[in-house]
Amino acid sequence: MPGTFEAVDVPVALLGYGTVGAAVHRLLEEGADDIERATGHRLRIVRALVRDPVRERPVAPPEGLLTTEFADIRDDPSIGVVGEVMGGVEPTGGYVLELLRAGKQVVSANKQLVACRGAELFAAASKAGVQLRFEASVCAAIPVIKVLREALVVTNVHRVLGIVNGTTNFILTEMERGASYDDALAEAQRLGYAEADPTDDVSGADAAAKMAILATVAFGSRVGIESVAHTGIDTIRPEHVRAAAQLEMVVRLVGAATLVDGAVDVRVHPAFVDRHHPLAAVEGPFNAVMLQGDAIREITLAGPGAGGVETASAVIADMVSVIGTTGTGFLQNDASWRTLETLPPGELPAPFYVRVEVSDRPGVLAHVAERLAAEGVSVARLTQSLLNGSAALDLVTHEAPAGRVAAALDEIAKLEEVQGRPDVLPVVSDRGV
Amino acid sequence: MPGTFEAVDVPVALLGYGTVGAAVHRLLEEGADDIERATGHRLRIVRALVRDPVRERPVAPPEGLLTTEFADIRDDPSIGVVGEVMGGVEPTGGYVLELLRAGKQVVSANKQLVACRGAELFAAASKAGVQLRFEASVCAAIPVIKVLREALVVTNVHRVLGIVNGTTNFILTEMERGASYDDALAEAQRLGYAEADPTDDVSGADAAAKMAILATVAFGSRVGIESVAHTGIDTIRPEHVRAAAQLEMVVRLVGAATLVDGAVDVRVHPAFVDRHHPLAAVEGPFNAVMLQGDAIREITLAGPGAGGVETASAVIADMVSVIGTTGTGFLQNDASWRTLETLPPGELPAPFYVRVEVSDRPGVLAHVAERLAAEGVSVARLTQSLLNGSAALDLVTHEAPAGRVAAALDEIAKLEEVQGRPDVLPVVSDRGV
Repeated sequence: MPGTFEAVDVPVALLGYGTVGAAVHRLLEEGADDIERATGHRLRIVRALVRDPVRERPVAPPEGLLTTEFADIRDDPSIGVVGEVMGGVEPTGGYVLELLRAGKQVVSANKQLVACRGAELFAAASKAGVQLRFEASVCAAIPVIKVLREALVVTNVHRVLGIVNGTTNFILTEMERGASYDDALAEAQRLGYAEADPTDDVSGADAAAKMAILATVAFGSRVGIESVAHTGIDTIRPEHVRAAAQLEMVVRLVGAATLVDGAVDVRVHPAFVDRHHPLAAVEGPFNAVMLQGDAIREITLAGPGAGGVETASAVIADMVSVIGTTGTGFLQNDASWRTLETLPPGELPAPFYVRVEVSDRPGVLAHVAERLAAEGVSVARLTQSLLNGSAALDLVTHEAPAGRVAAALDEIAKLEEVQGRPDVLPVVSDRGV
Repeated sequence: MPGTFEAVDVPVALLGYGTVGAAVHRLLEEGADDIERATGHRLRIVRALVRDPVRERPVAPPEGLLTTEFADIRDDPSIGVVGEVMGGVEPTGGYVLELLRAGKQVVSANKQLVACRGAELFAAASKAGVQLRFEASVCAAIPVIKVLREALVVTNVHRVLGIVNGTTNFILTEMERGASYDDALAEAQRLGYAEADPTDDVSGADAAAKMAILATVAFGSRVGIESVAHTGIDTIRPEHVRAAAQLEMVVRLVGAATLVDGAVDVRVHPAFVDRHHPLAAVEGPFNAVMLQGDAIREITLAGPGAGGVETASAVIADMVSVIGTTGTGFLQNDASWRTLETLPPGELPAPFYVRVEVSDRPGVLAHVAERLAAEGVSVARLTQSLLNGSAALDLVTHEAPAGRVAAALDEIAKLEEVQGRPDVLPVVSDRGV
């Protein structure tokens, strides 16, 4: 079988030698004894593919480690495991494909690659009898992929709720403390949590790629990145955050993947999260993923969702797991083994938060409530606040299909007293218990 | 090598067939396809050892499954994996030892057995070249052992903080909502969270056994159950819970295992937990474990800490992991590979909560603060409340060694205005970040 490890010494190569790559190198050296105790093998970085070997690096790599020739890694039969920490979909995807076909075990930290080219790469891995692991592609050091694939094998996980983007969680937590959206974003940029162009994070696109991977693993059916509907946090205003507090909730960017009657729904959106829900406790740039399943009720994993050393720790965990399972038939298959339908949008019932700005006139609440009731939507909690000459109704509905809530809001928007289209956000309060 | 799995079919036996055993049986049958996809093998229960095979059971086991003869399992060469779900230290320990010596892989859900006889059992497993896994012995379905041993191999975990007893967490959460200790305990008993004799839970003894196991795995040095100091929750009064709320904290029974300068400290005690700490969010009968380490900062795992199906899920996860790693040298060793000193008591610095009941007389706060200052202990937060004709000072200190705080309290207790010995509890506010 390709890649069975007989010798104690296991030469390892890296694609990329940036922050994560250098951290993998350092941790593998510092932890060599720990790894040998756990696996019986010593992992040793022997090659790293880079574009520019003479570039100044924070820690100078040893002579002869860096190469610009991919073939130096692919064609070296002594190299059994390769860590992909270079990022990007091309040329990375082509490299990974060639490595798998050459019988090398591959560990990737690349969410775009796994989300976009997973089907092809996993098929190549299966055909070659090697593993492609990807723990570091989602939530850095939080071992959610391992837990899903190895610990929860028989638990029928049917829902994954996640805060999987630290940048937006930091911004929303800052807004909870009184900051405006713009100030919170600027602070995130100053601290290095947000990029100069924050679009990928604040739009929900980054979270959508991670939820596509998590849903694929949890439900065993490939979820393409394009089928994850996502809404960003740039529409969240301080008044939403204040209303959430009044309603004993917090605003979070939540990824939700749900399996209902054999169909899958995956989306990312800002949501009102009940104060007692485990996701409400996730603050700052942290991530958390809650897994709900038949035999476990719910398990939540939380921790830092990014960082060079944290990501490196997950890359090494995958290498250790590859070494520890090769030759046993364990996880030789793609996580995706069936093809499930996508749930039509608007069908999944949830409670919703609705904000209606109105002229402060007696009877307007009754009019709003009537329109909701006409669509079968009932109000669970309400708080009313006065603005200058007008008022805002912030309310939380009982569970209702999104389509019915939208229909009610269409009617409410037509009311003479109502100013503009009401805001609506889903509410997360469900537990697996 | 003993126990390498060649055939697709893997006959499995159980020691015990109570709630957990029957749930293991059911989940293995329902999840057989899932397990085969993950491991290439089908696990099938063929025997279960019981004392009374004719006892009425909720689900009648198939004809011929139950046996009263241990030798039927030990001497059946077709059985490769045994799940121990019978509990107790004897005769269970003797059975497990014989099974390991007979070359069978063993999975145990038994915290007493692992905590009390671990050294002997793991030595026998290593000698026979088989695994003894024990995920279900701590926190049911929460995969904390797997994460520590397989995902965090190179992260130098130096602190484990846990809420590892659901009964006491339920009682403390009920007290937060206004219940007295006695009413909360009665409610826990009514719901089946607490036993008729709740001593093992409320005294902290159950949590101490779990922390001994977690510390052993996290630090690689055997921590005996007898070296875990534990204080229970039966001294917690409603006024402590109210003071905690005023200080933006909650009261939790916390297990804390710490590795400092090559020495280990493990203890269980009620503690004041900062409202923003991840452990503060753990409510009702749930458990959570926070792991702090160099490369991960902190990772928290939370979920139900008990339950038949939840425990069964962990037993099966271990069986799957055994199948998936046998023959590779992975985890063939005892988690304990070194011998670390125990930290002398009172040396570990922490912030402390102190409650002093005093005659309401001007100047008493100054006297209390002076005694604290004389021992180098400074006050971080304070709240004062009036009782009938007297007052209570509830204060939180900055970090200080327990011994210095105790010395200050000795002096404070001698003050004329002070009524009785002040209460003191450690504060948990530290994060791995």
